[in-house]
Amino acid sequence: MTDIRPGSVTLKDLAAELGLHPSTVSRILHGESDTARGAAAPATAQRVRDLAKKVGYSPDPQAASLRTRRTHLLGVIVPRLSDLVLAVMYEGIEEAADDANYSTFVMNSRDDTAMQRRKVEVMLSRRVDGLIIGDAHLDGNILDELSVRQVPFVLMNRAIAGFTSATCDDTLGGALVAQHLWDRGHRVVSVIAGEKYASTAVDRTSGFISRFRALGGAIPESAIVWAPFDTMGGRAAADTILRNTNRRPSAIFAVNDFAAIGAMGAANSLGLLVGRDLAIVGFNDTSLAAQLPIALSSVRSPMLDIGREAVKLLLGVLNADRVESVRLAPTLCVRASSDFERTAT
Amino acid sequence: MTDIRPGSVTLKDLAAELGLHPSTVSRILHGESDTARGAAAPATAQRVRDLAKKVGYSPDPQAASLRTRRTHLLGVIVPRLSDLVLAVMYEGIEEAADDANYSTFVMNSRDDTAMQRRKVEVMLSRRVDGLIIGDAHLDGNILDELSVRQVPFVLMNRAIAGFTSATCDDTLGGALVAQHLWDRGHRVVSVIAGEKYASTAVDRTSGFISRFRALGGAIPESAIVWAPFDTMGGRAAADTILRNTNRRPSAIFAVNDFAAIGAMGAANSLGLLVGRDLAIVGFNDTSLAAQLPIALSSVRSPMLDIGREAVKLLLGVLNADRVESVRLAPTLCVRASSDFERTAT
Repeated sequence: MTDIRPGSVTLKDLAAELGLHPSTVSRILHGESDTARGAAAPATAQRVRDLAKKVGYSPDPQAASLRTRRTHLLGVIVPRLSDLVLAVMYEGIEEAADDANYSTFVMNSRDDTAMQRRKVEVMLSRRVDGLIIGDAHLDGNILDELSVRQVPFVLMNRAIAGFTSATCDDTLGGALVAQHLWDRGHRVVSVIAGEKYASTAVDRTSGFISRFRALGGAIPESAIVWAPFDTMGGRAAADTILRNTNRRPSAIFAVNDFAAIGAMGAANSLGLLVGRDLAIVGFNDTSLAAQLPIALSSVRSPMLDIGREAVKLLLGVLNADRVESVRLAPTLCVRASSDFERTAT
Repeated sequence: MTDIRPGSVTLKDLAAELGLHPSTVSRILHGESDTARGAAAPATAQRVRDLAKKVGYSPDPQAASLRTRRTHLLGVIVPRLSDLVLAVMYEGIEEAADDANYSTFVMNSRDDTAMQRRKVEVMLSRRVDGLIIGDAHLDGNILDELSVRQVPFVLMNRAIAGFTSATCDDTLGGALVAQHLWDRGHRVVSVIAGEKYASTAVDRTSGFISRFRALGGAIPESAIVWAPFDTMGGRAAADTILRNTNRRPSAIFAVNDFAAIGAMGAANSLGLLVGRDLAIVGFNDTSLAAQLPIALSSVRSPMLDIGREAVKLLLGVLNADRVESVRLAPTLCVRASSDFERTAT
């Protein structure tokens, strides 16, 4: 292949190539049909179109946005697409964007503030109309700066006070799990809490703790283990929890299904049978949960809808409508991993 | 050759003169050697080169004159980021791109040709330097057109003869599973084969079948079930396979871990204990496989490296280097889901 850059051809290039005035080429390629007709002789118009097609000409993003004020492209930033939850939310974003005749693309920030900043700038330099930010940190990181720059954006998945967001009611989700485990007789419980900078982790954990304590239960700080939202993070956290001989819980709440699966692996390795010796409950009810050899109880969050709502909110912002944050209600799916009575010890 | 004047010859002229598709001529003259090899029979390739030399063909002067600075942005298209395999390959792409001071963004095509075409155009309109295509269909869909337009791109994950790609040696992976199941005494086996349009599905399946037959085994067509690469697809396929009372296999090979987990769910529902009544082997060895309550045997493919290699190949194309397709070797991880001897029945 030669190293011609696709889409790198400008109107001026085409005009120069054909010995025409750029405005003529512009009217032929971008004008309504009658404008195009008036712009040049049919044969000339055909030559312009042929060359444009041949060299893969496409309108300059800057010019296009100036002409239409919109690129109809939305940028999305998530921590990691290998977190199935974010990948599914992104599919909801794509569906809603498609319905509204918008395109979307997504980048990972790895929850790294410097990378987050770089990705935002790349997206803005590509002329997105607005951003959906799925990796907000509770310290707000670059959000204030984006507000000052009047960049249109909304938050998804993670909420921050003062910014518009589409999320799950994570506090309620945590409370549902606490109620379930308490009702099944569990009094010694631990939480694999996720990352401290994420509202999802903090709200699910605090929702769980508040309800459990309200029911009369006790949860020492040592029973809360903060860990990455993935299989390995969950495995390591569960290993720490289960090897603590001073306090071995009969139930573990992991704020993410992948972490819960990692916890199942740790339990296996220690010879504990999940669903009999140990209850485990995850969060999000990803497609895997119900299919596992020991089906995983999980809080179902409307992941696709959260993505769709985020798009609606952003389009509202772009239209200067009044928008209110959306918090969707979760439900608990009880399965084999926690569907048993804890006999008092 | 009266109507072709040296110096003014285009690809289309050559193609017309030889009665070939312009993309074939393009790949033979502009592609790297193994691309050219795949593009046409050696004799045809020679005819193209001879004519090109005879008439003094040189790459499109117009195209050559239309060059601009790089954006250092690469576009990536995958079927679905909710397929963990693609999400992990994309992380490999990001790492390698970051090392080379490039940014990347990704879009889903849902394996829909129209959507694939739209996403490609959006990426080109955003001025990416080149594309990494992770959702190629065996019919080649829009790849020929991109070649003719001289868009720099490489394939990842799925291979197509005649195009540069970074993939796993899927045929070998399938063969490793067949050998393993045969050695453990399985003689009645089925395959959850994935989607027919994907080289990954076709190669893993054919690699499995060839080796199993070479060992003396028999696999009727009815034992091969094509299905989506996800949990629900795997569950439905396994359900079909296991409800067929005329031929119930003692082992199932699913060409994707998520499909394998769905198959585990189907086995559960039918009261079959995976790892004793039924062997199941997946593909890719995603982070979940080893942690499942019944650890899943899986073919480990170097997903991160496949992503990294795809970036290296594309940067090579952008630098007009000679690049050769990369096919990385898989290894088989045997775990509880298939780690038992099938006692002859």
